[in-house]
Order: sequence, then C-alpha cells, then structure tokens
Amino acid sequence: MPTQDHMKQALQTYIDAFNAGDAQAVVALYADDAVIEDPVGNPPITGRAAIEEFYTNAIAGGAKLALDAPIRGSHGDRAAMAFTVDVPGMRIRAIDVMTFGPGGEIVRMEAHWGPDDIET
Amino acid sequence: MPTQDHMKQALQTYIDAFNAGDAQAVVALYADDAVIEDPVGNPPITGRAAIEEFYTNAIAGGAKLALDAPIRGSHGDRAAMAFTVDVPGMRIRAIDVMTFGPGGEIVRMEAHWGPDDIET
Repeated sequence: MPTQDHMKQALQTYIDAFNAGDAQAVVALYADDAVIEDPVGNPPITGRAAIEEFYTNAIAGGAKLALDAPIRGSHGDRAAMAFTVDVPGMRIRAIDVMTFGPGGEIVRMEAHWGPDDIET
Repeated sequence: MPTQDHMKQALQTYIDAFNAGDAQAVVALYADDAVIEDPVGNPPITGRAAIEEFYTNAIAGGAKLALDAPIRGSHGDRAAMAFTVDVPGMRIRAIDVMTFGPGGEIVRMEAHWGPDDIET
C-alpha cells in the first residue's frame, strides 16, 4: 500500500501540474486502466486515452484549482482533498477522493460536486 | 434519490447535532443497517447499536466539529464535507463522504483521515 506521504504528494502534484497546464503530468499519476467519476453520479470514464482527453479539455478551458484545506490521507489506500475550481465565468466547489493501487498510481478518482456547487 | 438540499441539510444537521452533544439526533440520520468506515482503512462498524456507541463515545470525549469549506453534493446519492475535529489535546482533519439511500437516510459513511492528519 502506498505511504501517506506518497498519496498526499500525488494529490499536491495533481493540483500543481493542472495549474501549470501540464495535462501529461496529471495523467501520469493514473494507472493505465484507471476510472474517473467526475462528477459522482455521472457515467465514469476509463483508461488513459479518455483520461488524457478529459484533462486536456479541462486545462484548455482555463480551469485553475485551489485547495480549500490541507489534503487528507487515510488508514488505507485513499486520500482526499477539498478544492475550488475557477473557470472563466464559473466557480465549482469539489471534493475529490483518490484510490491508489499497490504501485502508487491512482486507480480511481471520484469527484463530489453537484449542480448547487457551481457559482456563475 | 434524495435531493441535493436533503443531503446537504443532513450533513449540516450531523455537524450541529454532534456539537450539541445530541448523539441520538446524529444516529437518527442513519439507516438501521448503515456502515461506518472511520477512518477509511480500518474495519467498518455496522448497524444502529454500534453506530450509537460510536457517536456516544465521540461526543463524551469532548470532540467538536467545524466545517473547513462548504458541504459538497454530487450528481448522485453522495455528499461530502471537509472539517476539523477538535478534541481536548488533539486536532484531526477529516473528509467524510456520505452515501444516501432512497429514503434519505445515510447508508454509508467513509471518513478520510490518516495518522498524519492528527495534530497534538
């Protein structure tokens, strides 16, 4: 199981790489067959090609991420973070939960935000 | 599926009832056969009697909860919140994810906090 330090650093890298516009560095955090459910309740996307498209589009849309509070770990294979997404003309408040595989890659990401968590 | 308003109000009631020392009101948010994994990675507890004991002990220990950021919903049956637990001599930073049943009760609670999320 990955260490707490590893998981928290991966989430911080996620934020930093996203804000640097480096979709490749974000995608590199994921396992090849990872699943993203963003938002929770919508159909998930699976696999590296779909995940790369997802982040390339999000970054191209001008989104920037800011942590609302320190990243949390767990006593298992998960870490979580509350953050705000600022897109031109829109703000989304989200909580992402990442599950890690034994090799330290993210195998599942679940993003909790609803219609009421968007401000325009 | 419960509404966003219902789920967010349930999480706010959770915080308020906990801080008021009202374990019964917290437990009443749960389904009879609900599962609590707190923290994620430890064995879960199941059912009303175990859940009541869990909250009675937590409240008796003097814990108080404060939201770090607004409660998040989802596009499904989940809501999440980042908060800080202040216990005498200890502070824990947690992110809880609650899954709701069709009747509006919480059927699963998963608390994300690790050994590094405790300050003494």
